[in-house]
Amino acid sequence: MSRSAYEDDIRLAHRLADVAADIIRPFFRAPLTIDLKADHSPVTKADRGAEQAMRAILEKERPEDGIFGEEMGVSRPDARRLWVLDPIDGTRAFIGGRASFGTLIALVEDGRPVLGIINQPIHQERWVGVKDLPTRFNGEVIHTRSCPALDHALLATTSPWLFEKEGEVHFDKIRLKCRDTLLGGDCYNYGLLSLGHCDLVVEQGLKFYDFAALVPIVEGAGGIMRDWQNRPLNKNSVGEVIAAGDHHLIEPALSAMEL
Amino acid sequence: MSRSAYEDDIRLAHRLADVAADIIRPFFRAPLTIDLKADHSPVTKADRGAEQAMRAILEKERPEDGIFGEEMGVSRPDARRLWVLDPIDGTRAFIGGRASFGTLIALVEDGRPVLGIINQPIHQERWVGVKDLPTRFNGEVIHTRSCPALDHALLATTSPWLFEKEGEVHFDKIRLKCRDTLLGGDCYNYGLLSLGHCDLVVEQGLKFYDFAALVPIVEGAGGIMRDWQNRPLNKNSVGEVIAAGDHHLIEPALSAMEL
Repeated sequence: MSRSAYEDDIRLAHRLADVAADIIRPFFRAPLTIDLKADHSPVTKADRGAEQAMRAILEKERPEDGIFGEEMGVSRPDARRLWVLDPIDGTRAFIGGRASFGTLIALVEDGRPVLGIINQPIHQERWVGVKDLPTRFNGEVIHTRSCPALDHALLATTSPWLFEKEGEVHFDKIRLKCRDTLLGGDCYNYGLLSLGHCDLVVEQGLKFYDFAALVPIVEGAGGIMRDWQNRPLNKNSVGEVIAAGDHHLIEPALSAMEL
Repeated sequence: MSRSAYEDDIRLAHRLADVAADIIRPFFRAPLTIDLKADHSPVTKADRGAEQAMRAILEKERPEDGIFGEEMGVSRPDARRLWVLDPIDGTRAFIGGRASFGTLIALVEDGRPVLGIINQPIHQERWVGVKDLPTRFNGEVIHTRSCPALDHALLATTSPWLFEKEGEVHFDKIRLKCRDTLLGGDCYNYGLLSLGHCDLVVEQGLKFYDFAALVPIVEGAGGIMRDWQNRPLNKNSVGEVIAAGDHHLIEPALSAMEL
């Protein structure tokens, strides 16, 4: 990893990912109690245990930074630096025995993500994105691919049923103009886009902890992440997200959605 | 593996899976030319190379048996024993860099599948199902799980857009009665069902080479595979497929589809 103002933070983020992975791994494809949260999304001991362990390290190592985790809420919300954690992005996939989930770790400064990790603990796949540095996958620098036009684009989204009703209409408009669409994947889709294996990801209803880590990864690999109004993503974004591997795709893609 | 009338065939099927895996692996996440077939589905050098290699072995080792492969058609269609090959089931996932595709190898006698392999060459996951033997995953005996009722069931299907229009209506009826639905996966979903990680898979438009290998795997793990009219699957089935980990789910599931 090149020298960076975030060197200590990168090292700490790796440590968080390692600790979460050790907690999650034994639960994969093992008998597991599934609880339903208020929004009916599932949660398990693995999600909670991994977040708890990451928070404990952060409390010790970065006592002044804030923490915002999917399962356990916010500590010091007004801190300038905020660690944003999703212990298992893709809990449904995790429960279903699919290794396409990931642990998401982001460092956010003044509301903007500056460091992100996607860690897939079963197959040991780790993406690291840092402001002003090239994104790395298992240590190697990676790049998105160029895509000349929408009808060449491979689009990905986790599920058409995760869109709101109007959102699904917009999604269908772009889907039918793309070469093909792959379903499933959660955070893994953004990792594959960063590796140059798909061109677009379009999603709705994401929370900040679902996308904060993805922004530095996608952008450090040469791609771009925006909301559906083509604005940069931050803490206050409503969770309508588009990622493109090729910057030239963003405008035709948003225009195809007829928003 | 216990003694079986199919011992030599099992050994040969493993050899086919090994050879296909060695050909496919270098193409995964590597630059690849994608051709479109007459039905607009994609095909690559990896699909064709793997099928060619498996056919060459079969021609030598089983010169009297028939061969039916996805990419290269039928040889000796009237043979009593037929080897049914799908070198890459889930070519779209393969192209998109997702390790949820598989090589499918089936031995069919008198139109009924008696031996099946799903091989996932990237993560070295292999399911082997043989008539009258317990299904094995990487050598270990595996079992489907019990599921008391439809509203407890985790349903999986590759994509809602792979159904015909009427088929999608029936699929939506069952989907809304299940606990949750996972998308993506191709043959991998039937492997996960056999491991007890989901309860139902419902699909339409499958070809014989898409499901022949799955039947002995699912049924040897304690599950059941049927067409949408609750009939056993064979060479002439129309490709409307349902798999259930728990036999008790088949009737409520088909009835929920309001066929």
